[in-house]
Amino acid sequence: MKLNIALLAGDGIGPEVINEAVKVSDAIAKKFGHEITWKPALTGAAAIDAVGEPYPDATHEVCKNADAVLFGAIGHPKYDNDPSAPVRPEQGLLKMRKALGLFANVRPTFTFPSLLDKSPLKRERIEGTDLVFLRELTGGIYFGEKGRRDNGDTAFDNCVYTRAEVQRLAKKGFELAMTRSKKLCCVDKANVLETSRLWRETVQAMEKDYPEVEVSYEFVDAVAMRLVQWPNSYDVLITENLFGDILTDEASVISGSMGLMPSASMGAEVSLFEPIHGSYPQATGLNIANPMATILSAAMMFENFGLMEEGKAMRDAVNKALEAGVVTEDLANGGKAYGTKEVGDWLAANV
Amino acid sequence: MKLNIALLAGDGIGPEVINEAVKVSDAIAKKFGHEITWKPALTGAAAIDAVGEPYPDATHEVCKNADAVLFGAIGHPKYDNDPSAPVRPEQGLLKMRKALGLFANVRPTFTFPSLLDKSPLKRERIEGTDLVFLRELTGGIYFGEKGRRDNGDTAFDNCVYTRAEVQRLAKKGFELAMTRSKKLCCVDKANVLETSRLWRETVQAMEKDYPEVEVSYEFVDAVAMRLVQWPNSYDVLITENLFGDILTDEASVISGSMGLMPSASMGAEVSLFEPIHGSYPQATGLNIANPMATILSAAMMFENFGLMEEGKAMRDAVNKALEAGVVTEDLANGGKAYGTKEVGDWLAANV
Ligand SMILES: CC(C)[C@H](C(=O)O)[C@@H](O)C(=O)O
Ligand SMILES: CC(C)[C@H](C(=O)O)[C@@H](O)C(=O)O
Repeated sequence: MKLNIALLAGDGIGPEVINEAVKVSDAIAKKFGHEITWKPALTGAAAIDAVGEPYPDATHEVCKNADAVLFGAIGHPKYDNDPSAPVRPEQGLLKMRKALGLFANVRPTFTFPSLLDKSPLKRERIEGTDLVFLRELTGGIYFGEKGRRDNGDTAFDNCVYTRAEVQRLAKKGFELAMTRSKKLCCVDKANVLETSRLWRETVQAMEKDYPEVEVSYEFVDAVAMRLVQWPNSYDVLITENLFGDILTDEASVISGSMGLMPSASMGAEVSLFEPIHGSYPQATGLNIANPMATILSAAMMFENFGLMEEGKAMRDAVNKALEAGVVTEDLANGGKAYGTKEVGDWLAANV
Repeated sequence: MKLNIALLAGDGIGPEVINEAVKVSDAIAKKFGHEITWKPALTGAAAIDAVGEPYPDATHEVCKNADAVLFGAIGHPKYDNDPSAPVRPEQGLLKMRKALGLFANVRPTFTFPSLLDKSPLKRERIEGTDLVFLRELTGGIYFGEKGRRDNGDTAFDNCVYTRAEVQRLAKKGFELAMTRSKKLCCVDKANVLETSRLWRETVQAMEKDYPEVEVSYEFVDAVAMRLVQWPNSYDVLITENLFGDILTDEASVISGSMGLMPSASMGAEVSLFEPIHGSYPQATGLNIANPMATILSAAMMFENFGLMEEGKAMRDAVNKALEAGVVTEDLANGGKAYGTKEVGDWLAANV
């Protein structure tokens, strides 16, 4: 296969972890006879510094014409303390999601047996957890009309959803559930919000098309509790943008393996793959960042092209590295810590 | 002191736990020379069944004219499966909050040494946790305009906040922080929402009036993570209605003492006190419900009248009961389980 991949390294440790993901992906391509052309493009604070905006048109062109986007991380402390500044890296993120139509954010939370002790939860609570959130990513209160009235003394944000938006996301959820344990949980606040009632009635109407999937409906506050109590009671969860923002982050810390969690944002044409961790500015340039989440994101990318063996080879290599202790300092547990590059080298040699 | 207390027992185990709170409050009143007049009124499914609505005008009259409201729990399974049903118990709750102007929901999460092992979190993560959320309760997306367009295919919910609403809630937060460790965390999503930017700028402008309070600003998704990782790093947190709904529930399960957590909803004129647990319909009438959260809510009520010794006597009695193993089956740990009434009797005799 010939693959054209847009490469958005971003800020902080972004470029370093992206380098290793490229290295390992190239090794996989070589092994399985694919040809990857990487198309680097600017994003985040790096793009603001270079051209004055976080998601420049030139970057959009590159992404739109690529088969997929591999993304590092964005965010820089100089933009952190003023969320009302006119230009901020996050705006680039939101603009990119909307412009590329990345409507379904896929966020798995799973455990690695060797890392269970890193979880804040007791072992019996977290063991066996393997869930996936599908978060709607281009609608809801993120993109509704917002503004001020009364000389700035009243602020408003409008949350809007259409039935088609819900169907599109829910369809992915049902399909994903069919490939897993056929359990789907729709997370909403239908006892208060009209948009949630639309979500619930839309998903209810789709149940008949997937008779094998067992669907449950839970309020967002109840899910926020159960995720901490019994995370392994969940499988596939679908939800709207803001609930997904909060719950996927909550879910990410329960496994103890946050530094390893990949994600995908699926669009109708192009999809994007990125680690869930941030740009970790303090670690920039130190060759200490853990590249595994980005490498597992690249694995998701291969699988999304239908290249299941390739993805599996990358996952297996990561598991082997964890078992062999070829890990960066965040996972070294007082033992030997390898550098970002050395972990990448080892994985490239072992896929 | 002469106290006039509206008594809203509600549904499920509500009446049983309320009975015990009345019993213990009366014992306290006797001991300290106060006179409490209890004014029972209908609410929840019980009120729907009796008069067709969950918060009848007659109940509002009773609450409005009381010095405080003591509330049990509402919710009944027959209303659970259809969030779009025209009359539901939760609507009564929202109507009551708005009508009584209960703008600040106070939700403490603290630990009892004897219950630490019930927490899903490892001991070292949860030990020493003692935080309080102040959740705004009468504004935001709960009460903004909501509805449908396009023949029902588009739904919307509007989130609105005014500067005055934020100031009123934040003032309570600063004041509470002054009585504790002088740390205040404002939880928002100011990188995305205009209402959050109003929250943040309003709180920032108030900082100068409380120079001793150290204020931090955190995004709601980050708080959802840190609550699980390091709950004891928080003290007082203030936030808007929907974020508060999700985060206070998340916080409630981390301590292992959810069945014991009280809460208050403060208004300009009258305030309401209630356990955070639900109506637990399966346990109705079995004399097994744990009345301690309701009794601790009554303790908050006394303290809110400035009757600090009275509140402390109730708390101390609960601690003594926990140490003596005078507990209901949820805390019995295989040991002897006392009934709801027996726990109330013991506490009334020991305050
Ligand atoms: C940076 C921010 C705008 C973004 C979001 O809220 O979606 C982030 O939290 C995420 O989840 O990707
Ligand atoms: C029942 C529901 C409307 C309510 C809310 O969302 O406020 C509940 O979850 C709560 O937190 O008291």
